[in-house]
Amino acid sequence: MICVLTGGTGGAKFVDGLRQVMPSEEITLVVNTGDDLLWWGLYVSPDIDSITYVLSGMLSRERGWGVKGDTFLCLQAMGQLGEPTWFHTGDRDLAVHLLRSRLLAEGRTLSEATSIVCGKLGVKARILPMSNSRVETRVDTPIGELSFEEYFVQRWYQDPVKSVRFAGASDAEPAPGVIEAITSADAVLLAPSNPVTSIGPILAVPGIREALLSARGKIAAISPIVGNSPVAGPAGILMAAQGLPCSIAGVAQAYEDFLDILVCDTRDARAADALRKNGLRVQCTQTIMRSAEDKAALAREVLALVSPAPSSAESSTSDTSFRPLGRQP
Amino acid sequence: MICVLTGGTGGAKFVDGLRQVMPSEEITLVVNTGDDLLWWGLYVSPDIDSITYVLSGMLSRERGWGVKGDTFLCLQAMGQLGEPTWFHTGDRDLAVHLLRSRLLAEGRTLSEATSIVCGKLGVKARILPMSNSRVETRVDTPIGELSFEEYFVQRWYQDPVKSVRFAGASDAEPAPGVIEAITSADAVLLAPSNPVTSIGPILAVPGIREALLSARGKIAAISPIVGNSPVAGPAGILMAAQGLPCSIAGVAQAYEDFLDILVCDTRDARAADALRKNGLRVQCTQTIMRSAEDKAALAREVLALVSPAPSSAESSTSDTSFRPLGRQP
Repeated sequence: MICVLTGGTGGAKFVDGLRQVMPSEEITLVVNTGDDLLWWGLYVSPDIDSITYVLSGMLSRERGWGVKGDTFLCLQAMGQLGEPTWFHTGDRDLAVHLLRSRLLAEGRTLSEATSIVCGKLGVKARILPMSNSRVETRVDTPIGELSFEEYFVQRWYQDPVKSVRFAGASDAEPAPGVIEAITSADAVLLAPSNPVTSIGPILAVPGIREALLSARGKIAAISPIVGNSPVAGPAGILMAAQGLPCSIAGVAQAYEDFLDILVCDTRDARAADALRKNGLRVQCTQTIMRSAEDKAALAREVLALVSPAPSSAESSTSDTSFRPLGRQP
Repeated sequence: MICVLTGGTGGAKFVDGLRQVMPSEEITLVVNTGDDLLWWGLYVSPDIDSITYVLSGMLSRERGWGVKGDTFLCLQAMGQLGEPTWFHTGDRDLAVHLLRSRLLAEGRTLSEATSIVCGKLGVKARILPMSNSRVETRVDTPIGELSFEEYFVQRWYQDPVKSVRFAGASDAEPAPGVIEAITSADAVLLAPSNPVTSIGPILAVPGIREALLSARGKIAAISPIVGNSPVAGPAGILMAAQGLPCSIAGVAQAYEDFLDILVCDTRDARAADALRKNGLRVQCTQTIMRSAEDKAALAREVLALVSPAPSSAESSTSDTSFRPLGRQP
């Protein structure tokens, strides 16, 4: 059983690889909910949606979010009604938001609503929101404090960032199962997600960082920074705002208290050497995921690294020879 | 200024004619809300929607409900999530339900939400829900009591009907403006709607029947029954359940305490004679509305009938010579 902390499009891509190389039933995902928003009166959880769509085979790989082949006629009609349209919810995508919103209105928790939606869509992995409490990522900019989606989607991360905070985090509790999933997993993986606004909110929930410190399995993070630039999105700007260098060293620093292994791109070999001198185990590999094969190869390599009885030569050569962690001797 | 009591597809067709022959600004519509339902957690008001779509030019004339050219991808996705799909909300149509539901959740009344939606869609007529209280048409059948939409749409009005009641009506109040619109109108028209489940709920709201009895303008009803059959839908079954014959006599009986003029089809000339002997003014004309021209002709004829200074020869011969009631000498 492995546990993955994830958020954002990088996280979704990595999970798309994982599901190719191990049984989904053996994956528990702890997902960022700091980006959640009320949109047209509906509760939208962008990172839970992306992971749900990846694992049900519904994700639009072209866009990296939403449902493949979706249309946007309701969005267009909302625009004609004078409603905001900057957050692109597709017509098929709306179904998940409608169902979740109704379940929440009926008194279900976000965990329960997520589990019900996953059940309906045949998702076999366990998707856990980081918390059932509202934790909202707030980005402070010269035009005022923005929600993450306002900053990222509405304004295309053009605003300088003064700081980031996670409103509500100090009063939040981890969702049921989160702590146990982390502490009891054979390995914990931090997806190549933005360390500040995708993984940061998860770590800000009281108890989760402590769970990582007492995890029995190895903890590996895949760097979303390659050659001192983020693979996608505003990770660099946001890391700088939090006093972290935009480099694999910055990623290592964000996770330094609990990280066992950092997986970085081969382009960062020199920076990796520097980190190794500080005692961190660092593995350089191909981390850019362009194809399904890229995703599977990265997932396979990461799993081999964290395996208690590694047989990386075997596990990285063919799909059929791969044995998921939980079944290894 | 004229006031129209309306509901259902017959009502929508008649209003489509009215808007062709008089300024929309001079029409107030009092609309049935007994069919309203919570659908996927959204508040849907089928009759208000149809009238809104007619008056904004958005109605699908092929279907008689919903938005023309609409698609149903969210509906399909809801089906995949195991949610009910018998009530067909289109992707564009959803926008109105989303906006209205959000406005209601924010504390607006149905009147206010309707007015806001109409404003956004450029509707110039005034659309009033019969009441801002929840009045629910309940149809008692051998399988139990059904909501109107369950009876009509989900089960295709196949169930025998024991009785119909309007739950909540006795505690309901007319929405703001309804009583004044009826009492002060130059004429009140009852659209060719189902007398039991489209007009019946309106008349069941305390105060509305009394307002009709004290209206200063003439009151005319267009019969939805032609040759002892309803033009469409279950009006005959529902009238029988309420002890009314399925005939123009049954329509006259439903409205007998306040009706001045009954407009019926030429096919009912003999039955019309019988009603005239009882002292009712009855006008026979072509009431089946197949084309835009049919709708306009019926609307023009009805307006001429209720005009305080009728010039029906003039007003029924050409569009340009038509002078709306409010402007006649």
